[in-house]
Amino acid sequence: MNDLMSKIQNNLSKFSKGQRLIAKYIIEHYDKAAFLTASKLGATVGVSESTVVRFATELGYDGYPHLQKALQEMIRNKLTAVQRMEVTSDRMGDQDILRTVLSSDIDKIRMTLDEIDRRSFEGAVEAILGARHIYILGVRSSAALSSFLGFYFNLLFDNARLIHTNSVSEIFEQILRVGEGDVVLGVSFPRYSKRTLKALEYSKKSGATVIALTDSRLSPLSQTADYTLLAKSDMASFVDSLVAPLSVINALIVAIGMRKQNEISDTFNKLEAIWDEYQVYEKLDNE
Amino acid sequence: MNDLMSKIQNNLSKFSKGQRLIAKYIIEHYDKAAFLTASKLGATVGVSESTVVRFATELGYDGYPHLQKALQEMIRNKLTAVQRMEVTSDRMGDQDILRTVLSSDIDKIRMTLDEIDRRSFEGAVEAILGARHIYILGVRSSAALSSFLGFYFNLLFDNARLIHTNSVSEIFEQILRVGEGDVVLGVSFPRYSKRTLKALEYSKKSGATVIALTDSRLSPLSQTADYTLLAKSDMASFVDSLVAPLSVINALIVAIGMRKQNEISDTFNKLEAIWDEYQVYEKLDNE
Amino acid sequence: MNDLMSKIQNNLSKFSKGQRLIAKYIIEHYDKAAFLTASKLGATVGVSESTVVRFATELGYDGYPHLQKALQEMIRNKLTAVQRMEVTSDRMGDQDILRTVLSSDIDKIRMTLDEIDRRSFEGAVEAILGARHIYILGVRSSAALSSFLGFYFNLLFDNARLIHTNSVSEIFEQILRVGEGDVVLGVSFPRYSKRTLKALEYSKKSGATVIALTDSRLSPLSQTADYTLLAKSDMASFVDSLVAPLSVINALIVAIGMRKQNEISDTFNKLEAIWDEYQVYEKLDNE
Amino acid sequence: MNDLMSKIQNNLSKFSKGQRLIAKYIIEHYDKAAFLTASKLGATVGVSESTVVRFATELGYDGYPHLQKALQEMIRNKLTAVQRMEVTSDRMGDQDILRTVLSSDIDKIRMTLDEIDRRSFEGAVEAILGARHIYILGVRSSAALSSFLGFYFNLLFDNARLIHTNSVSEIFEQILRVGEGDVVLGVSFPRYSKRTLKALEYSKKSGATVIALTDSRLSPLSQTADYTLLAKSDMASFVDSLVAPLSVINALIVAIGMRKQNEISDTFNKLEAIWDEYQVYEKLDNE
Repeated sequence: MNDLMSKIQNNLSKFSKGQRLIAKYIIEHYDKAAFLTASKLGATVGVSESTVVRFATELGYDGYPHLQKALQEMIRNKLTAVQRMEVTSDRMGDQDILRTVLSSDIDKIRMTLDEIDRRSFEGAVEAILGARHIYILGVRSSAALSSFLGFYFNLLFDNARLIHTNSVSEIFEQILRVGEGDVVLGVSFPRYSKRTLKALEYSKKSGATVIALTDSRLSPLSQTADYTLLAKSDMASFVDSLVAPLSVINALIVAIGMRKQNEISDTFNKLEAIWDEYQVYEKLDNE
Repeated sequence: MNDLMSKIQNNLSKFSKGQRLIAKYIIEHYDKAAFLTASKLGATVGVSESTVVRFATELGYDGYPHLQKALQEMIRNKLTAVQRMEVTSDRMGDQDILRTVLSSDIDKIRMTLDEIDRRSFEGAVEAILGARHIYILGVRSSAALSSFLGFYFNLLFDNARLIHTNSVSEIFEQILRVGEGDVVLGVSFPRYSKRTLKALEYSKKSGATVIALTDSRLSPLSQTADYTLLAKSDMASFVDSLVAPLSVINALIVAIGMRKQNEISDTFNKLEAIWDEYQVYEKLDNE
Repeated sequence: MNDLMSKIQNNLSKFSKGQRLIAKYIIEHYDKAAFLTASKLGATVGVSESTVVRFATELGYDGYPHLQKALQEMIRNKLTAVQRMEVTSDRMGDQDILRTVLSSDIDKIRMTLDEIDRRSFEGAVEAILGARHIYILGVRSSAALSSFLGFYFNLLFDNARLIHTNSVSEIFEQILRVGEGDVVLGVSFPRYSKRTLKALEYSKKSGATVIALTDSRLSPLSQTADYTLLAKSDMASFVDSLVAPLSVINALIVAIGMRKQNEISDTFNKLEAIWDEYQVYEKLDNE
Repeated sequence: MNDLMSKIQNNLSKFSKGQRLIAKYIIEHYDKAAFLTASKLGATVGVSESTVVRFATELGYDGYPHLQKALQEMIRNKLTAVQRMEVTSDRMGDQDILRTVLSSDIDKIRMTLDEIDRRSFEGAVEAILGARHIYILGVRSSAALSSFLGFYFNLLFDNARLIHTNSVSEIFEQILRVGEGDVVLGVSFPRYSKRTLKALEYSKKSGATVIALTDSRLSPLSQTADYTLLAKSDMASFVDSLVAPLSVINALIVAIGMRKQNEISDTFNKLEAIWDEYQVYEKLDNE
């Protein structure tokens, strides 16, 4: 973080008047600047788009998108809930919220499709298929993702276990026996959960294969993981957008399902029979 | 369901040889046919795409997409888990699963953006903002969505309550006092949950305003709801794709957040202060 | 039920005037009569205690307590919540509630200690120690007991699984793979849960060893179980008294703990070390 | 803690030979000594029971039971899980575990009945009846108690809320709006939960009335509470014995139920009607 900021500070005297306006805005409002396009940033401080682009180049970035990305990395995990609310507010303005949010989610999936590492994905699939035990871990808003994954893995595997993520100690009690041959899949997005991170570190140290579903190579989960599945979330909203990660989870379940097809058909047939025999399933009569 | 099927049966004698091949395939494999394009359906039975298109027209549909849609409506909520696994398998074939799934999820959000009723969305936002109590309800795979919504509504409101969806009776115990002025938001996708449906019917009868997040005007939830938020899910996968519904939930939280901005800023400030004072929040030291 | 009631009805003409008063009261207020002592029942209808005792003998019972017990069995699982509230109210009267409830709970444990079948208890311990997988199941108020048991079994075993008791279908999804070598321990007290019962029946049919913690040999769980652990609950309160069952669970955990002592010491040592290393445990500084 | 131990150390030279044996044993094995009777302690170190009793008197205690109590207070919250396992093992020896555990639980309820402060109990009942909102809080093994209480309070009140006790931050998010007029009831037994304690401190500071269900006046929960309900648990077993606390909870629910009788009858009648209309309740056909 200090790198970018001090670079800006140190070059202040060399900047043109327009560039100084940009510099000042970034220093004071870095949390907003990181989510402005070059043209919006220019308009905000009263300079042209090309001035903004040149500013990025002068700082040593290969175009404005790279400066913007550096800003975003800088503030990752640093924005408070209040700041994120303000950014959301600025960004929405008078716009059509439905269109803005859904379009942004489409972009996130598209970026995810471009950037996801297929070898990591394949590696994760193989590791899961070969695991002795599979542990699934996610807390707070990420618990929605881990419980969805747990729902399907419970159908697909007899050795999958959703960690019910209570206090740190409860997590450790549940993964106490994790070891070689096991796979631990952790889900966390900024602000990264310390609990999830510590549990993955412990799992790695105990010899398990660690899979992380997270947003960036810079995510602390990624440091610990054998396989990192990258999916874009959205810092510029006070809601953690977990749409792209959920889409990756869909793909993961389908990929594994395709490999266990016969076995799963048996499971599903057995379930349908049980549902019938014990009349337990919710049937809609008038459909 | 019988309408379309009997129409096909009744016209069998009038069909050309090629059309009969299509008819036969649809009758026997309607669950797969519903998810084939005209050209793939043609290729499968050995006729040209235009023969397929004409077949749809002869049946009285305004093009093949309408026939396909009718087929999909027909099988909605009827496909068993095993059938869905087979459809998924046929559809994936040798394709790149990541690309197929993520692209399909993008399409689902795009279709949702095209089809969602903005007046329902606005109506839902107003109803929630004015509610005496807000109840959130979703079971099985939809529980991932309702718990995500519950996580944020718990921050945004002091009168929101996530129904922990246990047995039917437990749901009723939790919504026993639902009445006028209350809002009950139910989430369900095919196979629709009987429990969610009954709880919404009871809520409606008790005078509450009912909001349904579901996939179709034909969904039984929609019959009961004052406001229906439509989001596309995916019958042609053994995984319920809840990506588009999650994106709609994002938009709903943002839209409400924008309306309660000042109040929420206070809440978030208070939370940050508590986290500091009681040192309870997960901080990453080395970020 | 009809047996006792029709016996009373059929003998009406033979009864003395005093006995007829008792008979009438039992027919009309059987739910209350079942919880009155001989002397209170006498006082209520205006006859002597010995008249009540002779009434019981005439009906063929070996003393009034046996008649009372027959009444209680008769109404087991039949009292509605409202009736139980009324019984509680009559019973508490102006009494000291704390003393009445705690003394009654002491009695329940004492009766449990007298009546519990030690061979079933030992059999249950052995079955659990030798199990391939251990499943623990309890819903509604019994979920408090099963989650307590699950908390400790998770520490004691690596193959124990608390069934998170949602809808019937979710229970079945979680016990789908139950089979020979597995142990399924179900907890249910009147009103008995149909879900728990069906799950135990399925488990038995699938070849698993079934252990029931319930209140009576007449409990439907007992019919299915290989080992029944009997613990007294209390019909005569609108609260299910689960104190005696919880005491039996304590004994079960201790008995198993004593058999796995070395192993558990290792587990506990490992946990303490993890708690230290990852600073995860709640320590009280000022104790 | 240091007081008792240093008193023993400082008096070593004055002790008789027998007393020195006792002193040495207590210093080295205080965790076991605290749970031995005078006669067993004597037998263990090879002195008479009366020597043990005089030893207590010399240290300034009014009989051995007071010394023993001091020892127990000293080690409260200090015994690790491993130490508790060892104490359990020594205590059980060859004894009948069922009898030992159930008898001990009876004693715990009896002691609770003797020691519980009726004014605190009455005060707690009044506070709960008059509360704006009621929050119920318990984690780890105590979660069994709080969820049982939550189950009944959800039937008795429309303003009761069971805190789903996840990480510390989640607890705070759920009690964020606690304030004057609210009641927060916390359940914790040794090792006391830091999370529960901090949440009660925050609640107190925010103006709420705090009720603690705990084991001792020395419990940190008791310091914060307006009303403390004391119930005996058992340090001398590796299982937290929550039987006496559960009995107190029974009494609390009954006491409140008696005060809200008419209202509850309505609720129960309404529930029975819903169960009938929506056929949702588990009925046993063959009972």
